[in-house]
Amino acid sequence: MNYIKAYAPATVANVACGFDIFGFAIEEPGDIVEITRTERPGIVIKDIFGDGGRLPREASKNAVTGVMLHLVEHLGLADFGAEVVLHKNMPLGSGMGSSAASSVAGIVALNALLDEPLSRNELLRFAMEGERIASGSAHADNVGPALLGGFVVIRSYDPLDVFTIPFPGDLYATLVHPDIEINTKDARYILRDEVSLKDTITQMGNVAGMISGLMQSDYELISRSMVDVIIEPVRSILIPQFGMVKQAAIEAGALGCSISGSGPSMFALSRGADTAQKVAKVMAEGFKQVGIDAHSHVSAINKTGATILEQA
Amino acid sequence: MNYIKAYAPATVANVACGFDIFGFAIEEPGDIVEITRTERPGIVIKDIFGDGGRLPREASKNAVTGVMLHLVEHLGLADFGAEVVLHKNMPLGSGMGSSAASSVAGIVALNALLDEPLSRNELLRFAMEGERIASGSAHADNVGPALLGGFVVIRSYDPLDVFTIPFPGDLYATLVHPDIEINTKDARYILRDEVSLKDTITQMGNVAGMISGLMQSDYELISRSMVDVIIEPVRSILIPQFGMVKQAAIEAGALGCSISGSGPSMFALSRGADTAQKVAKVMAEGFKQVGIDAHSHVSAINKTGATILEQA
Repeated sequence: MNYIKAYAPATVANVACGFDIFGFAIEEPGDIVEITRTERPGIVIKDIFGDGGRLPREASKNAVTGVMLHLVEHLGLADFGAEVVLHKNMPLGSGMGSSAASSVAGIVALNALLDEPLSRNELLRFAMEGERIASGSAHADNVGPALLGGFVVIRSYDPLDVFTIPFPGDLYATLVHPDIEINTKDARYILRDEVSLKDTITQMGNVAGMISGLMQSDYELISRSMVDVIIEPVRSILIPQFGMVKQAAIEAGALGCSISGSGPSMFALSRGADTAQKVAKVMAEGFKQVGIDAHSHVSAINKTGATILEQA
Repeated sequence: MNYIKAYAPATVANVACGFDIFGFAIEEPGDIVEITRTERPGIVIKDIFGDGGRLPREASKNAVTGVMLHLVEHLGLADFGAEVVLHKNMPLGSGMGSSAASSVAGIVALNALLDEPLSRNELLRFAMEGERIASGSAHADNVGPALLGGFVVIRSYDPLDVFTIPFPGDLYATLVHPDIEINTKDARYILRDEVSLKDTITQMGNVAGMISGLMQSDYELISRSMVDVIIEPVRSILIPQFGMVKQAAIEAGALGCSISGSGPSMFALSRGADTAQKVAKVMAEGFKQVGIDAHSHVSAINKTGATILEQA
């Protein structure tokens, strides 16, 4: 095999109450990576489309090729050579798991080109390295769902313990990206290092409710559990119109609404595609009222994660 | 109906990672309450057995009769009269949910005597008042499982949101009570008011893992999730031999082992009754090595909660 084209989806990390431990994948948008084997050893970036020239072109500094170099080194393939093309189909620094989608598409493409030496679960550590290259911290709450699909729990980082849980079939996500940018490092920096025991207990209760609601298809319980008393009160300050947009989403029928990842995108979960569409409309309007352009996406929860689109 | 005899079981609150939000009931031991209707209005305590004379005999100050007075007042039954007998079958201040078992047996007995004006879920608030009378704080993590049975989650106190979750059929509890006493108020007082964000994330991951493991009958996941980085490191200082007893339980095959409620009792969960028995033996021996008598109980998870034993 000499050519692979792979796709990995956008993802929503944190999911209200589950800071650093919950994430889910949506169906679209997503990034595409093409890899073509070359005679000459070494991995090089041939082209990046859709990033406005902002991503590094040097292979070791770019998340996509950076994770590929790690995998090639891990497998001891000193002679391996490839040219890589990345198609960015979502904005950088958006809270939609942009870097994760690229890293995961890259690592899945390379693994396929090499005839699947590693399982999806084994690829997770490599994809996490892409997050370290992109944002300085090897988080799994975007790469986990981008790779595995579904609703993902990161129980522990040390040792790494990641699993998917069942979720109801009629659960739809709305993802709205306002045209402003937040740096992931800044979004982390403003968080307090300490949490009150009271808030910790509240958040644990909501985490328990969220897992139980998802696994038992109890939409009301999911709705009651989509409450974040720790992170959202701090980070929402960085998002103009946050309170108004959230309220509009709830009034339009969303089960809950919060910040996607470290923002500025906001997400909502709804029962049924129609409600999710209505929610998308009012959320985008909320941003537009103050002159901020907003792009919305409505999607079922992605069940498969990254996929191979073409091979030759 | 003029006479009721009701039973409510011992319970394990917190269950390692779920401080204030998790609890489960065991089958035995449990407290028994007998109520006999009287012509004369008012609720009086006729006898209490097994408390060594330590519980208050004045109706409004005793948790059992205190909750009954609340219910009678709530129902507007000014003429109601009854004599109450309480049989304590577990030690006070043991971390086994002693006051909860008494309050729940009392409220369930009274509700049955009055021909079930309230549902089990509606009785929860009254039973919680018993906890306030006994310990100053209306917690639900013992009264919830004593009343409803099974594995209970308290998602929220305000508004009260309590539900049970499925658990694997081969899950057995070991409960070991060392013959020392810890005051619940003291056990709460030594806790820090603040928790690091890092520990909060770790604990949330374990809460998610515990719920998912229980609901999917994944014993390994239950085992990995029975980790408490917030409360156990502080409270375990109050329990002599804690580390040694816990390690012995794990080595004997327990999925996990921690403090039951606010202690000093310790509990373990195991797959299968045989393992739970072995675990009980080594845990009790651990205490006896330093001259502390310990009583152990092995039980399946109680599926029904409080029950009516006799009526006439």
